Amino acid sequence: MPTVDLNSDLGEGFGRWTLGDDEAMLDLVTSANVACGFHAGDPSTLRRCCAGAVRRGVAIGAQVGYRDLAGFGRRSIAMDPAELADEVVYQIGALDGLARVGGGRVAYVKPHGALYNDAASSPTVARAVAEAVRDYDPTLPLLGLAGSHVLAAAADVGLRTVAEAFADRAYTADGLLVSRSQPGAVLHDADEIAARVVRLITEGVVTAVDGTEVGISADSVCVHGDTDGAVAIARAVRSALDEAGVTVRPFVHGDD
Amino acid sequence: MPTVDLNSDLGEGFGRWTLGDDEAMLDLVTSANVACGFHAGDPSTLRRCCAGAVRRGVAIGAQVGYRDLAGFGRRSIAMDPAELADEVVYQIGALDGLARVGGGRVAYVKPHGALYNDAASSPTVARAVAEAVRDYDPTLPLLGLAGSHVLAAAADVGLRTVAEAFADRAYTADGLLVSRSQPGAVLHDADEIAARVVRLITEGVVTAVDGTEVGISADSVCVHGDTDGAVAIARAVRSALDEAGVTVRPFVHGDD
Amino acid sequence: MPTVDLNSDLGEGFGRWTLGDDEAMLDLVTSANVACGFHAGDPSTLRRCCAGAVRRGVAIGAQVGYRDLAGFGRRSIAMDPAELADEVVYQIGALDGLARVGGGRVAYVKPHGALYNDAASSPTVARAVAEAVRDYDPTLPLLGLAGSHVLAAAADVGLRTVAEAFADRAYTADGLLVSRSQPGAVLHDADEIAARVVRLITEGVVTAVDGTEVGISADSVCVHGDTDGAVAIARAVRSALDEAGVTVRPFVHGDD
Amino acid sequence: MPTVDLNSDLGEGFGRWTLGDDEAMLDLVTSANVACGFHAGDPSTLRRCCAGAVRRGVAIGAQVGYRDLAGFGRRSIAMDPAELADEVVYQIGALDGLARVGGGRVAYVKPHGALYNDAASSPTVARAVAEAVRDYDPTLPLLGLAGSHVLAAAADVGLRTVAEAFADRAYTADGLLVSRSQPGAVLHDADEIAARVVRLITEGVVTAVDGTEVGISADSVCVHGDTDGAVAIARAVRSALDEAGVTVRPFVHGDD
Repeated sequence: MPTVDLNSDLGEGFGRWTLGDDEAMLDLVTSANVACGFHAGDPSTLRRCCAGAVRRGVAIGAQVGYRDLAGFGRRSIAMDPAELADEVVYQIGALDGLARVGGGRVAYVKPHGALYNDAASSPTVARAVAEAVRDYDPTLPLLGLAGSHVLAAAADVGLRTVAEAFADRAYTADGLLVSRSQPGAVLHDADEIAARVVRLITEGVVTAVDGTEVGISADSVCVHGDTDGAVAIARAVRSALDEAGVTVRPFVHGDD
Repeated sequence: MPTVDLNSDLGEGFGRWTLGDDEAMLDLVTSANVACGFHAGDPSTLRRCCAGAVRRGVAIGAQVGYRDLAGFGRRSIAMDPAELADEVVYQIGALDGLARVGGGRVAYVKPHGALYNDAASSPTVARAVAEAVRDYDPTLPLLGLAGSHVLAAAADVGLRTVAEAFADRAYTADGLLVSRSQPGAVLHDADEIAARVVRLITEGVVTAVDGTEVGISADSVCVHGDTDGAVAIARAVRSALDEAGVTVRPFVHGDD
Repeated sequence: MPTVDLNSDLGEGFGRWTLGDDEAMLDLVTSANVACGFHAGDPSTLRRCCAGAVRRGVAIGAQVGYRDLAGFGRRSIAMDPAELADEVVYQIGALDGLARVGGGRVAYVKPHGALYNDAASSPTVARAVAEAVRDYDPTLPLLGLAGSHVLAAAADVGLRTVAEAFADRAYTADGLLVSRSQPGAVLHDADEIAARVVRLITEGVVTAVDGTEVGISADSVCVHGDTDGAVAIARAVRSALDEAGVTVRPFVHGDD
Repeated sequence: MPTVDLNSDLGEGFGRWTLGDDEAMLDLVTSANVACGFHAGDPSTLRRCCAGAVRRGVAIGAQVGYRDLAGFGRRSIAMDPAELADEVVYQIGALDGLARVGGGRVAYVKPHGALYNDAASSPTVARAVAEAVRDYDPTLPLLGLAGSHVLAAAADVGLRTVAEAFADRAYTADGLLVSRSQPGAVLHDADEIAARVVRLITEGVVTAVDGTEVGISADSVCVHGDTDGAVAIARAVRSALDEAGVTVRPFVHGDD
């Protein structure tokens, strides 16, 4: 009986500014990557998002990012690794406080945006993030790109690793993501996306941009929450998985 | 055998900017009110300050403030109480994470600057702060101005309260602080300050600006760390207490 | 032949976060109160907004606010007046630079949010804002609430004053705005709002919440751009004014 | 009769935090690179610094940087060039406003920290900065590292370029700066630094780290203001230049 986790980036408003529909997405996913205030997320939005996750049994992840509200954490910042590690700890702790007030706890960590990419591609950044998580709480899993440096570094420091695939992204024949700067990098058709996710989980295969079949092993699938039609896509993915007999549940539950 | 706690505001640099001499002050005080990043304190400075406190057995307090780096938390911000409470939780959690990485934990909470004053004088602000602390961890004491609203609110929600006096501030005949806008509000002579603190702890009395004797009951005495001569004053206070046979120790120890 | 200016708060996104529909509103108003980066507005959004205003002959105003992205400038900050004045100058200059790059110049100043309210009600804040505008450029008009302190202070330092009324707000019998905390303070029906604005401009009268007729003299009417249905309301107001034979044009043109 | 300009980074405090001694440095230099609020510099500090420069006939330069108070602008941020250009315009305009209130105007632009380095080494960043300056005011000179991309880009868009050398930095045999990560990269002896600057200006030569003589042509020499002994070094440099008969004056004066 196949199982999978669905995760989404949530809590990404800031004060007057909202982004996406957290409540609707929390009804569909099993893990919520909640922003931590550095790239997005004012404390009240974060607390509400955590409380909403707790009410539904959705796992709370700390979505740590670069300190860059103006760039939404999407711009790489050439930081000292030790300072980066301290910033990661700060963010996990802050969200853990708000999660606690909402009746839960941070159950895993996922880097955001440019930090996600930097941790995937740079062993130094990967190490800084992994050590920060370990120093905060060595039982927290680290969610990252399947086959990337961040999961290797996490394993290296003794963390549980969770490999992630993306529902709406095209893959290369090597099993890597097609860069957003390429045409066709992001898929938009809900039915197509849903069918790909089902095949990915039940067969472990996706069709790459060049038509070849690629094996991908993922414990969790990311569905985006901040784009037009995001909720509809997530709903299609969830329905398709349910119909295919895939159990959708948080990856952190079995171990807790 | 009289005892007292000495506390000081520490960790108040930010990146390139330093303030005060944290290492020297940590040798003299027994409780460190460590900034939490909203009015001051980058994560690396905070982690180092927490680690230095842990090494010396100094208790770590979360010095929560308004989100106002430009104003150093000294300007009152007319916030929604619920949002303020969430910001307090965020800050406590963030510092608690860094304290944990440094081998300790946040052991109490003290508001900073304008939030200190607002929590002392406004029941609404006092309540928001007290509830935030209780929701984060009901075993954390709240350190605040003796006789003020913040201690009443803390008691009301079930928190342990710790009353504070100021080593270098003049008092009115009513036992309140003389406003900083008045001449003579801040004392600068180290020996005079030290003698006042000894008398305050051993006799429970200070001489007010009008010459009358005022009874003050304080569990902790604040010595400032960010002004010229701050370390010298703190050293004089500590030496005078030692010589007077007063035991200087953290207020959180007996209960932990 | 009656004339009036229509103004709206624009440029209020920040990086990833958008707010309102600047392009649609710029087709309807004659003066754009463009944010200056302190309460909202990243530089690229501001430059685009200024360029869009220049293309349409819409006047650019510097919408100065408190330094408070988290609170969208809606929270009063108890600032030193001299520091506030410097912050106002900084913001006007910053926007003026972006306006210049977009082919225009800042043509007037309007405070935003809590600063709007504080400048209307506090002579000290009003004076700080007015002096900042005068020191930057004494030919810039100051747009503010009809009959309030900010216009008195502006006149006092030699600035041209422009009195403003609100299209979608209820008025008291004294000609003041009904507080947003009261029921009925904000009107939502586009046709009703449009009819009120026409009567305000052609007759100088509005019907207050208690049914009495109140005389209001306004050189400019504010239509909001950031709420649901904002564009539709603004379009209804503009159309109704056109049909009533009211000339809608920027208040700064005659003097330039 | 040789002439040279002495420049220094000033206005780099932020609120409660001070850095360096602006008043002392303004007595010694002829060009003040004043921070613009993104890497450092609150508006009141900046206005005071500008006013102090105006009183002494010191030219005011806009020291533009990355938006990164936590990193003091010393961390490279991978920004979109168009957004970077807008941020540069915003900063120049903001400082120009405060300079105007202080009786002067921004007379040139110099990038700070990581932006200085990125503009020197990356043609894309150089171009973004140069175009921003040109779009704001094509008569403003751009001050940058002698022989680097930023001066080439500035010349390319029609700006006057001003080549800069560093008083306290070691040079390679190729006329480049020795990286700060190398031993001996920064000189600390005031007399040695002063003698080097005199020789640089009167002979156009410096002794490189490997002992060879290198030709360097510089219109302006940077003396740092934020390190220990900075004022003493600047004073030694200024005195040595005076004694050597070198005229020290702003590079912008001849053209204004």
